[in-house]
Amino acid sequence: MATSDIDPTLDNLYADMAAADVAPLWTQRENLMPVTPLPAALPHVWRWKVVHALAERAGVSVPVGRGGERRAIALANPGLGNVPFATPTLWAAIQYLGAHETAPAHRHSQTAFRFVLHGGGVWTVVNGDPVEMRRGDLLLTPAWAWHEHHNTSDDAMTWLDGLDIPLVSQLDAGFFEYGRAEISDRSTPSVARSEQLWQYAGLRPIGGDAGGACSPLMVYRWESTDAALRAQLDLDNRGEGGVVSRGHAAVRFTNPATGSEVLPTIRIEMHRIRAGQKSVSRRAVGSDVWQVFDGSGVITLDGLPVPVGEGDLVAVPSWCAFQISADTTLDLFRFSDAPVYEKLGLARTDFEPEDKPR
Amino acid sequence: MATSDIDPTLDNLYADMAAADVAPLWTQRENLMPVTPLPAALPHVWRWKVVHALAERAGVSVPVGRGGERRAIALANPGLGNVPFATPTLWAAIQYLGAHETAPAHRHSQTAFRFVLHGGGVWTVVNGDPVEMRRGDLLLTPAWAWHEHHNTSDDAMTWLDGLDIPLVSQLDAGFFEYGRAEISDRSTPSVARSEQLWQYAGLRPIGGDAGGACSPLMVYRWESTDAALRAQLDLDNRGEGGVVSRGHAAVRFTNPATGSEVLPTIRIEMHRIRAGQKSVSRRAVGSDVWQVFDGSGVITLDGLPVPVGEGDLVAVPSWCAFQISADTTLDLFRFSDAPVYEKLGLARTDFEPEDKPR
Amino acid sequence: MATSDIDPTLDNLYADMAAADVAPLWTQRENLMPVTPLPAALPHVWRWKVVHALAERAGVSVPVGRGGERRAIALANPGLGNVPFATPTLWAAIQYLGAHETAPAHRHSQTAFRFVLHGGGVWTVVNGDPVEMRRGDLLLTPAWAWHEHHNTSDDAMTWLDGLDIPLVSQLDAGFFEYGRAEISDRSTPSVARSEQLWQYAGLRPIGGDAGGACSPLMVYRWESTDAALRAQLDLDNRGEGGVVSRGHAAVRFTNPATGSEVLPTIRIEMHRIRAGQKSVSRRAVGSDVWQVFDGSGVITLDGLPVPVGEGDLVAVPSWCAFQISADTTLDLFRFSDAPVYEKLGLARTDFEPEDKPR
Amino acid sequence: MATSDIDPTLDNLYADMAAADVAPLWTQRENLMPVTPLPAALPHVWRWKVVHALAERAGVSVPVGRGGERRAIALANPGLGNVPFATPTLWAAIQYLGAHETAPAHRHSQTAFRFVLHGGGVWTVVNGDPVEMRRGDLLLTPAWAWHEHHNTSDDAMTWLDGLDIPLVSQLDAGFFEYGRAEISDRSTPSVARSEQLWQYAGLRPIGGDAGGACSPLMVYRWESTDAALRAQLDLDNRGEGGVVSRGHAAVRFTNPATGSEVLPTIRIEMHRIRAGQKSVSRRAVGSDVWQVFDGSGVITLDGLPVPVGEGDLVAVPSWCAFQISADTTLDLFRFSDAPVYEKLGLARTDFEPEDKPR
Repeated sequence: MATSDIDPTLDNLYADMAAADVAPLWTQRENLMPVTPLPAALPHVWRWKVVHALAERAGVSVPVGRGGERRAIALANPGLGNVPFATPTLWAAIQYLGAHETAPAHRHSQTAFRFVLHGGGVWTVVNGDPVEMRRGDLLLTPAWAWHEHHNTSDDAMTWLDGLDIPLVSQLDAGFFEYGRAEISDRSTPSVARSEQLWQYAGLRPIGGDAGGACSPLMVYRWESTDAALRAQLDLDNRGEGGVVSRGHAAVRFTNPATGSEVLPTIRIEMHRIRAGQKSVSRRAVGSDVWQVFDGSGVITLDGLPVPVGEGDLVAVPSWCAFQISADTTLDLFRFSDAPVYEKLGLARTDFEPEDKPR
Repeated sequence: MATSDIDPTLDNLYADMAAADVAPLWTQRENLMPVTPLPAALPHVWRWKVVHALAERAGVSVPVGRGGERRAIALANPGLGNVPFATPTLWAAIQYLGAHETAPAHRHSQTAFRFVLHGGGVWTVVNGDPVEMRRGDLLLTPAWAWHEHHNTSDDAMTWLDGLDIPLVSQLDAGFFEYGRAEISDRSTPSVARSEQLWQYAGLRPIGGDAGGACSPLMVYRWESTDAALRAQLDLDNRGEGGVVSRGHAAVRFTNPATGSEVLPTIRIEMHRIRAGQKSVSRRAVGSDVWQVFDGSGVITLDGLPVPVGEGDLVAVPSWCAFQISADTTLDLFRFSDAPVYEKLGLARTDFEPEDKPR
Repeated sequence: MATSDIDPTLDNLYADMAAADVAPLWTQRENLMPVTPLPAALPHVWRWKVVHALAERAGVSVPVGRGGERRAIALANPGLGNVPFATPTLWAAIQYLGAHETAPAHRHSQTAFRFVLHGGGVWTVVNGDPVEMRRGDLLLTPAWAWHEHHNTSDDAMTWLDGLDIPLVSQLDAGFFEYGRAEISDRSTPSVARSEQLWQYAGLRPIGGDAGGACSPLMVYRWESTDAALRAQLDLDNRGEGGVVSRGHAAVRFTNPATGSEVLPTIRIEMHRIRAGQKSVSRRAVGSDVWQVFDGSGVITLDGLPVPVGEGDLVAVPSWCAFQISADTTLDLFRFSDAPVYEKLGLARTDFEPEDKPR
Repeated sequence: MATSDIDPTLDNLYADMAAADVAPLWTQRENLMPVTPLPAALPHVWRWKVVHALAERAGVSVPVGRGGERRAIALANPGLGNVPFATPTLWAAIQYLGAHETAPAHRHSQTAFRFVLHGGGVWTVVNGDPVEMRRGDLLLTPAWAWHEHHNTSDDAMTWLDGLDIPLVSQLDAGFFEYGRAEISDRSTPSVARSEQLWQYAGLRPIGGDAGGACSPLMVYRWESTDAALRAQLDLDNRGEGGVVSRGHAAVRFTNPATGSEVLPTIRIEMHRIRAGQKSVSRRAVGSDVWQVFDGSGVITLDGLPVPVGEGDLVAVPSWCAFQISADTTLDLFRFSDAPVYEKLGLARTDFEPEDKPR
């Protein structure tokens, strides 16, 4: 293909193009339209101990309040330059809320969830409904829902925040609004109102509001998630099927009113792999973030094995071959941007790709 | 409009039409296309004591077995002539299975459910998965699924069968196949396999088969239904909404994989009305069957009040004004053909119609 | 199975059941739940000449007007007893409107279409939009749309009316309302307003109302239908595919705003079979009515061949094996209740069933 | 909010965070989650004469062939730095194919269309179906469809290419494959095979392949588009509605098999505004590219009026207020990423925003 190295005509042409705010396809076609995805994001592991220690230091040095809004420390994928994004579409951050602190109400068009690795004592109030945060729970914050946090305990609490900030930023679709500085409801119920209406499998409250694109159930409790995974492995033990593969149980968190994803842009799942078992190796377009909830094992990323333990966080870029093997019973929380690709006709998956370094 | 009373030309014309297998619209337009629905079916109440006593007598006199298949006694709406149909679309029957009896496997294109007013000791085996039948439970039998019943106890058991036999018959869409005479699985688990996979609200088993037009969850247990209704009334007490109307809680049984109806042609619900409260009066196209599960009250049908108690069954024809008032806390099981009308663009509802006899 | 022939206990039981408005399943199970559909409707052919002559006689003897509403002569399937229904779900009638006659406005919850075998000079006004009726055209009348007809010519006109009257009647979902006696718009445009907006393939008018369950395009012109069929056979000649089978072209009339059926309960198609060719033999649940638009051939119904020519009408009951063979190029108009079965999960089709008489 | 200007503790903390590949939210919250979208992309106009002249120079200096693949000159939004993207999601380029040149077959996961401002003589072969390119035509190239171009005339031809390259690049979802170097079919039919099957409004070829996420109709001809716009303005003249607003007609190109967008990620429309009329001012999340097809007028972008004439191209970033006023009858081609926002629950529109500079 023509390059301008030896051709002043082309040099002039390219300079005139640049001046006219146009650019040739032919000199950069291979980069713009690669044979397979060429993500800038890298497979990467963040250690819980390291991130958590930084969160604790921020707890000492940085107040929570209006403007900064949240004491959240975001995973910044080293392949993505200076942006604090775990992957090109997903935001993952550790949020820290000190004893008796509050984080003020706001709302935004970005959709969010919280996942609780450990601790407790905080309530997230979503559109006026206080939701207790307990170990293993998944909490949702739908787009444009008012939300605030308050810690009623004498201990600090940390949790994982997941949002679609990078996607919404790239799409220039972000709106944000401040709410009242005061916490709207300081009550501390153990069951949220949305749970009272929607926590019963297959029982739709006829008079209940099913919400829109987001699940009307604001929290998925660990007791249920754990029981569901145990039941799958119990069936697997009896050869009855229902698991993803032998020794690999998994649930997807879904909207009980529609059966679809809990959030329109983010898929959320919990996986449990029996000690000594492996998941099927696969790669797919789109990116994931995984957090080890319990146990230890090895995650293999494009052929590179990485040992992981409780709390460790892993970013998996698009088309990166991925496999989990469990040393102990291994519980893994996963969120991904898969709904984006499925809705846009861009999904593609490859099972058992050859494990070769890129 | 022309009638043939005084006109031999018309007499001849109509005779020639009949001989040619055609017929005029104009002489019967008002009947074929009425101003509002003119159902042949009547509002009707069947008393549990009466029907149950007949079932017990059949238990003595009639064996269960191949050919007749089930010892089921069907509600025959007195407006529908000689067919054993509760309404033009819905079949409702009391099935009786004696101590240690079995009912042999078969399958059919009609879709079915069972609802348990009282008793126990029977397992329904659906596609090889034994499901225990306990008080208040709703069990599903999807179209074309193999199913059989076996009573392991020393007592007879009765329950309500609901099917779309009249609809499928009218549509000439019925297929039927005998299975093996022997019960395929005589085990008596308290939790069915489909429950193990699907009983957790919003937790989709990633490796599970979500089935097709019918819910993959074969049983909805009374403990959950009851808890959901209690939670709604608890929210109502606190003025939080979520009920159908003040003092009236209700859940619709739905497919956890899609959020839609449990069966493609039948909607199923459980209602609870607080003592002293009334439901909103309404009428709709399509027909319902209600069974009092617990308590007592009055059902008003096109202005006519009928006292009802435990087990009583009520058929509500199309466009019949319907209201419930509760003397005690009143639990009502309902099934209807509403999905048919919604899918075909024929649904119409009228709230608070004038309560006048037809 | 037990019968009461020899058992007074059973006689008493069955009498008591009848008195209590209940009925046993076991004595009539085989009829209620047959192995394959047992339609009462019969395969039947009506000859155009016969029906048309009766319509002309009605044109002389019977006025059109309020009450009877339309001078329509309905096909009455000889298997269905005394009801004027072509099949259990479909109404098919020849409507006759004399020179300069009008048929007054009304609307109803039944959905309707008109298909024009020959003639012209009539406009159907649908919700105020006059639509000219020309040979080969398909006109729609959505449920609950006001409609009226006026004949501006010196000749009578006949056409085929298709409706879901039997289905809506069986479902007790019929509503009807009279409109004004005077024709609302006596203008005679050659292009209807809905055509101006919606007749361009794949070009959605951004400001246009797409309607609801029914197509927003009120007429499908013969010129397009004919051209589409010719184009398919042209591709078939060149071995390019796109036909149903070799020598058999067909189009389904669809809603341009959604791609789905033109009417929520009725599928409508036009087929063209090359001289000397046959369609694939098939049977399906659900019923059809076919009208020969042009040409001649043989229709085989459950193994029985019937020669057909222009205008002849054929009713095909559920699960009746059906095949067309063309003597000349043969154009066939078809309407069916297939959408009902597909939406309710009851569809089943069998290709190349053995051609044996029932 | 805390900044590190005066606090060595924070300096240390932020340095340690950077070293650990994490970053604080609170220092950049306002940028990451803005009150309203803050697009980097700028409203921008490219003049046809300028871009076309550069394309002609490239025609002289740059061969077309394997590797670079296409002689396409892309609009490079001056706000987006060095990437050749018209907006953050949309690619727009002028492609130039010299007399008797060919562009070799390839396929890619990016979805594409061509719009022809003027000229002719080129066929685009899509999956083996040659499609003639004529003035005003819209051609589609579905994702992963083989396609190639060949110019059979003695003149060069230019056209507009639109793709979702930026979106697919950001999402790391790009796949690309080379095809054969030789043109697969050099025939020059005036009607493509997909047109023969799908060009008839509302007539679905029963035997035709409806494709998947993309329209099965590969070309939308100017004759139809023009006629549809004329018909709308004719209705508007008679006060009958159907237009977007008085004097503003518009069609959206849709998939005839489903009624949805022609491409899963790109909406495509043609607008016609009568001389002297204005469109309603609006802004929306998501971005557009407009090309003047015929006539002249003024486009107002966030309050700034820009005169435009034939061929001029305009990029409209997210949330930019946009209005068109026509000096002559003004035909405008538009493509946008609106389907992305609608599918992901991110759509938001504001009508008649105050026209103030940002």
